[in-house]
Amino acid sequence: MNPNARTTSISSIRPQAVRRPSVSSRLSFAVSTTEQGEAQIDNGQGIAAQHQIEEEIAKIKRYEDFTTIDWVQDATREQLRRKARRRRQSGRLERDWKQRIQESYEAAQGWIVITIIGAAIGLNAGFINIATEWLADIKLGHCKTAFYLNENFCCWGEDNGCEAWQRWTGVEPVNYVLYILFAITFAFTSATLVKAYAPYAAGSGISEIKCIIAGFVMKGFLGIWTLLIKSLALPLAIGSGLSVGKEGPSVHYAVCTGNVISRLFAKYRRNASKTREILSACAAAGVAVAFGSPIGGVLFSLEEMSSYFPLKTMWRSYFCALVATAVLAAMNPFRTGQLVMFQVHYDRSWHFFELVFFVILGIFGGLYGALVIKWNLRVQAFRKKYLTNYAILEATLLAAATAIVCYPNAFLRIDMTESMEILFLECEGGEDYHGLCERDHRFRNIFSLVIATVVRIFFVIISYGCKVPAGIFVPSMAIGASFGRMVGIIVQALYDANPKTPFFSACQPDVPCITPGTYAFLGAAAALSGIMHIYVSVVVIMFELTGALTYILPTMIVVGVTKAVSELFGKGGIADRMIWFSGFPFLDNKEEHNFGVPVSQVMTTDVVTIPVAGITFKTVEQLLSQDSYQGFPIVEDETNKILIGYIGRTELRYAVDRMKRERSISPLAKCSFAPSQYDNAITPITPRTPGGIEYPPPAASSSSTSAMTVNFSPYVDTTPVTVHPRLPLETVMELFRKIGPRVILIEYHGRLTGLVTVKDCLKYQFKVEAAENPRDDSHLDEGNERVWSLMRRAAGWVSDKVSTASGGRIRLRDSLEHRRGGSTGGGAGQILEGTEELLDDGGVELESRS
Amino acid sequence: MNPNARTTSISSIRPQAVRRPSVSSRLSFAVSTTEQGEAQIDNGQGIAAQHQIEEEIAKIKRYEDFTTIDWVQDATREQLRRKARRRRQSGRLERDWKQRIQESYEAAQGWIVITIIGAAIGLNAGFINIATEWLADIKLGHCKTAFYLNENFCCWGEDNGCEAWQRWTGVEPVNYVLYILFAITFAFTSATLVKAYAPYAAGSGISEIKCIIAGFVMKGFLGIWTLLIKSLALPLAIGSGLSVGKEGPSVHYAVCTGNVISRLFAKYRRNASKTREILSACAAAGVAVAFGSPIGGVLFSLEEMSSYFPLKTMWRSYFCALVATAVLAAMNPFRTGQLVMFQVHYDRSWHFFELVFFVILGIFGGLYGALVIKWNLRVQAFRKKYLTNYAILEATLLAAATAIVCYPNAFLRIDMTESMEILFLECEGGEDYHGLCERDHRFRNIFSLVIATVVRIFFVIISYGCKVPAGIFVPSMAIGASFGRMVGIIVQALYDANPKTPFFSACQPDVPCITPGTYAFLGAAAALSGIMHIYVSVVVIMFELTGALTYILPTMIVVGVTKAVSELFGKGGIADRMIWFSGFPFLDNKEEHNFGVPVSQVMTTDVVTIPVAGITFKTVEQLLSQDSYQGFPIVEDETNKILIGYIGRTELRYAVDRMKRERSISPLAKCSFAPSQYDNAITPITPRTPGGIEYPPPAASSSSTSAMTVNFSPYVDTTPVTVHPRLPLETVMELFRKIGPRVILIEYHGRLTGLVTVKDCLKYQFKVEAAENPRDDSHLDEGNERVWSLMRRAAGWVSDKVSTASGGRIRLRDSLEHRRGGSTGGGAGQILEGTEELLDDGGVELESRS
Repeated sequence: MNPNARTTSISSIRPQAVRRPSVSSRLSFAVSTTEQGEAQIDNGQGIAAQHQIEEEIAKIKRYEDFTTIDWVQDATREQLRRKARRRRQSGRLERDWKQRIQESYEAAQGWIVITIIGAAIGLNAGFINIATEWLADIKLGHCKTAFYLNENFCCWGEDNGCEAWQRWTGVEPVNYVLYILFAITFAFTSATLVKAYAPYAAGSGISEIKCIIAGFVMKGFLGIWTLLIKSLALPLAIGSGLSVGKEGPSVHYAVCTGNVISRLFAKYRRNASKTREILSACAAAGVAVAFGSPIGGVLFSLEEMSSYFPLKTMWRSYFCALVATAVLAAMNPFRTGQLVMFQVHYDRSWHFFELVFFVILGIFGGLYGALVIKWNLRVQAFRKKYLTNYAILEATLLAAATAIVCYPNAFLRIDMTESMEILFLECEGGEDYHGLCERDHRFRNIFSLVIATVVRIFFVIISYGCKVPAGIFVPSMAIGASFGRMVGIIVQALYDANPKTPFFSACQPDVPCITPGTYAFLGAAAALSGIMHIYVSVVVIMFELTGALTYILPTMIVVGVTKAVSELFGKGGIADRMIWFSGFPFLDNKEEHNFGVPVSQVMTTDVVTIPVAGITFKTVEQLLSQDSYQGFPIVEDETNKILIGYIGRTELRYAVDRMKRERSISPLAKCSFAPSQYDNAITPITPRTPGGIEYPPPAASSSSTSAMTVNFSPYVDTTPVTVHPRLPLETVMELFRKIGPRVILIEYHGRLTGLVTVKDCLKYQFKVEAAENPRDDSHLDEGNERVWSLMRRAAGWVSDKVSTASGGRIRLRDSLEHRRGGSTGGGAGQILEGTEELLDDGGVELESRS
Repeated sequence: MNPNARTTSISSIRPQAVRRPSVSSRLSFAVSTTEQGEAQIDNGQGIAAQHQIEEEIAKIKRYEDFTTIDWVQDATREQLRRKARRRRQSGRLERDWKQRIQESYEAAQGWIVITIIGAAIGLNAGFINIATEWLADIKLGHCKTAFYLNENFCCWGEDNGCEAWQRWTGVEPVNYVLYILFAITFAFTSATLVKAYAPYAAGSGISEIKCIIAGFVMKGFLGIWTLLIKSLALPLAIGSGLSVGKEGPSVHYAVCTGNVISRLFAKYRRNASKTREILSACAAAGVAVAFGSPIGGVLFSLEEMSSYFPLKTMWRSYFCALVATAVLAAMNPFRTGQLVMFQVHYDRSWHFFELVFFVILGIFGGLYGALVIKWNLRVQAFRKKYLTNYAILEATLLAAATAIVCYPNAFLRIDMTESMEILFLECEGGEDYHGLCERDHRFRNIFSLVIATVVRIFFVIISYGCKVPAGIFVPSMAIGASFGRMVGIIVQALYDANPKTPFFSACQPDVPCITPGTYAFLGAAAALSGIMHIYVSVVVIMFELTGALTYILPTMIVVGVTKAVSELFGKGGIADRMIWFSGFPFLDNKEEHNFGVPVSQVMTTDVVTIPVAGITFKTVEQLLSQDSYQGFPIVEDETNKILIGYIGRTELRYAVDRMKRERSISPLAKCSFAPSQYDNAITPITPRTPGGIEYPPPAASSSSTSAMTVNFSPYVDTTPVTVHPRLPLETVMELFRKIGPRVILIEYHGRLTGLVTVKDCLKYQFKVEAAENPRDDSHLDEGNERVWSLMRRAAGWVSDKVSTASGGRIRLRDSLEHRRGGSTGGGAGQILEGTEELLDDGGVELESRS
């Protein structure tokens, strides 16, 4: 989150009882009910005018930052747009070839956009892959013939290195120091780039994208700068050896690409909900290129990213993932000709007795997820509280610590992807890394793997969330793989010790029975699903990663066990928890609630309304000058509160600005919101005369004839979503999730009684949860304080040492005064210290409303 | 569809202007708006009483046949049930272990039910597989040692047959005749079983299940008899050699299993929308066991079956498919130890130039789908019109014709699954069926494959839909495989003829370049997605069937091309078209509409309402005696039409019956529908005193004290879904699809102006489509007549011949008088002859309404 993001606290959003003088002019508005169903008169003018106004509104900045979009209105706008186009087309009976091409282009536009985006994502992924490989190799040595080649390309066609590729020096300790220095440099550069140019490029971005796809607006999060910096800083972050992966950020840069490219097309620039279809598809392509797993990407987009996933989006995702993967395959960045990251051929099938151990792997996955989520969130809270000003220093120190600690361990030293590849392998055939398959080294290997698991878990907890592009997919899989391989080796040792026990009776003599590599494979699946709480996609991704088809049932069982264990700790995966932690207005569709209260319990009753007529222009401008209302219900008058419609803040501001631009308006001019013209905007299909004339927009024209009334009617939404006050809250939340309005008005027998937003629902939900699970986090705060003072003392000691050596002086300031504005990654860290605090004191602005 | 199904035509459903005398007693009902948001008083009695009534209603038959369920009400009921349970539990502070077990059981009930169902589906699939294999083999010979063994089990451990397994006779023509006789017997038995015991067991059932999962009620379609007969008749139908598959029916019996087992649990017996979650999961398990493809099953359920697919259902589907597949794998019916149906190892990867040919395969898939859908629907219309009384004869004759025609062709003679296995194989290694890999036989093979493709397409068109259990998955795949193999052989021949052309430059010399088996594989994928219009699931299924991971990109490309071609012909796959053909009230979520009209254009304005008070008991009974209304809006009085609530027909009938049972009620007693008690049914969470007393239901008690007023208030739904008359029709359809109410009331400023059901929307949609694409099908009718008279003449000739031989006489009657009531498979065949006709004259009752 931007430090300067508006931090309107929710308590101040709750509208004060603003009662304005209003003229209770009852309009002759009682449309007789029987007429409603009859065919209405043709009013093409109305549509044309309405369409023009819609176009104008669409052109302006439609949604403000940190608000949610209105799916219902966007859909209506799109229908109006199509209808107007159809009308224009049917007007000309003879269409020439230009128009035909134009039409075909408009019809195919969605697919064209997706193709371009997919290709761009594939290209970008290819370049990032190449850069990552080069950076990882440059830490160890360089290519004498051409410094820009990595080891593989430098020694193309030769096995086990070549003359051209040389270590930096011949002295091993110097190489080690150089290695650490490179790691530090990369991490420093990456963090500096992020901090200086695109704070939103930090982290994985999956949580935020989830909210954005659900309708949240975060300007700049998917912008061109984020894309550029993420693409540059990601290889540096991976190259620095931090315990972070490139799969989460890959989703982020893919979605950025989609956003940047779709902005170039008017159709998507104007329609925020259409754009979100594209973004869902890009998320699929992001996972697809990261893992080389197109179908896994589609499922990931479906299972994790999209709250709204119609079949059309599924096909778009499919196509986008296909194009991106095909481009990546054609680029062939690793020159292996393989889309599959680590192809393994498990020749042996599994035995039923192994299920016992597979269940252990599943349980590990669930526990791992719960542990990392819990502690990582605490580290995040600590980071937000104390470390926001030391983002670059933090990333650099973490890289240094990781390089120093991980070097001695054989499995931590190498790249995480590489280590997974080694751990997945069968022992028969192929090289043997670090004696992994030797019976004599079993205990050494088990010990190494335990250390690798524990150290990696520790580094994942403290690294994920630091201010460089960083994902958690591959680190989790690497942890799962090392744990799994360890279990596999133990089982193998057990079998070798007692091959004749009935338990192992399914094993055939003289044939290897246990394949430790498969345990590593299953462990990786378990850890991935444990941290992300995704299941079906994990099975498919593992599958597409390795091609281990025989192991589909064990994979499904392991992932199922992980799911069961994870559900004991509840509350969704790390992405969902980060959303909750950041306080974004996101209704999770994984949870089922049972509040048992009507919506009237939750709604805001104290609503600022606009009477349909009689309000002065000055009053309207005053309303707009207050920042806290997103829109205003229009009522017949403020006494009877009969609901006429709703006007959004953006539309109202646009209308006011436009009118003021066109002519001077007296502040005392009366404003009319009566939706007489809008009324007929949606008309029946009636035969039209060809050559329909484009009428001028009635809003401006009619208001110019009668100077003393200002007509806002074309900007009024006459069909806002309304519900009965006794409707269960759960149903209202269903409406928000599935239909997606920005606000739901509560209407009782035609009268407005209140309004409700997503935020109201979430607020109530937090309250109920807090009441059910009261908790005292003061000891946590104390602990944090103690850690922070320890860190300060350590920093002081170091800077003293440095100052005695260099004369300079570095000192960590107490950053308590900075705790209110986190630099990136969402504000309201106080959620951990108590739910109420988040809602009254959150650093992120939830949705304001009238 | 049952021939005696109520055939209320839609024109008669349109309510006549029934205006009843009504007392306009304005109630003191104006709840002050500010009080709405405040905490309300605790009224545990209200809840308890309400809960009891809900329980009673739930126990009775909730939904009538051929209506749709109300998702919103079902959800509310479920919440009320849970809340009541929570209240009961919180009443007792000290819970003993029995209650704890009870609670855990209730929490885990869903998973327990799914486990049992999954296991049952797996077992059933295993037995059906074994029976199918045995029936297929018994046509050729028998096992001397034990007649109940098929060839594989009879000759266990031996290759290429054994002594124990013998052909029926030594004379080949006699064997051939016996083969045909067996086929005829199987088809006859299968069709007789279906006709006699479970007409719903015919066909694939996917269309109907799709509607049922979307909320349609078809009693008996998922009953125990359908399950039994489908499980018995399916192996017979497959064994008879008809061009039908077992994958569609497998979904049907799986869903039947789920329905039958879930009925045993009160939770699902009472909640129709909960049951539908289970049914979605069962559909996944059905595909999973049919193809041995658990993830493919989940995706199929998601992509094709479920209009409503929350993540919870996805996990249920996952788990159900997992259990079913695991049980099937443990049974190991084929004794191959393989879950994978035909594992192929394509050692070679594909080349980019091959994409040209892959695109041809994709185009073939799309064209195949369009052709078969068009002509199969025509055959279905013909069958419904003329052949409904000759279902058994038809199936028998088809089996005979299939056996006679297919025998001479090498690829048609064998089982479809077996032929696919052969066609998928690489030429290197393994046996060579029918010289498929020999260069010399290329032209013979190409010719054979063309014949196989054409003949199979013909038989699929005329066989799918005949009155035996019959799917279209495997036949389509077999057709695609034979076409694909043909293309592969041609490409291979081209390469062999010109190996040096630049086009083939990617091929390495001395290594086989083209693998025709992969073309067969891709052709099968294309044909499957072309006929069903499913894409992502097809890729995963093909994948899980064969394990051909290297070919994931080509598979995706081929399926993508098929999709593009299919969309030119539009309107969804064969299942969707069958729904349309049968006239079920199903809102397809694949289509996007742009009507541009408000809901007021579509709604029924002439609604029969009930005034909130003053109506006599006699009048209520009269209302109920009319069959055409599914429910009645409650209004304040019939002049002002201020909307108070809605009462469903079922609830009203139940209340009337109950009251009459308890005491005699004067026909002139006044009825009250004022929802005073219901009003507070949903209350805020307030601290309760432990040991809450169960109050008697107020409905009965209060009405017995004042004999002259009958209180219906507990049965009134006070929060029906209402919308504004100007809301776009598309948004209303979204509401139906995503929220799922049975009826949406149109309210304008608190007054009822109309109501709208799914059927109204569909009716309008048909009208618009008919207006856009006017068509004249009279020539089709003439053609049908001509074919029918030809068939009658042929039958007459045959029966003359037979009668001269035997003295008996068979003659086909002209079945024109029977055309109104089809025996099974959905009524309104007239849809093909004009949309209006369906709607006014359809054989299937859509949803009636008040």
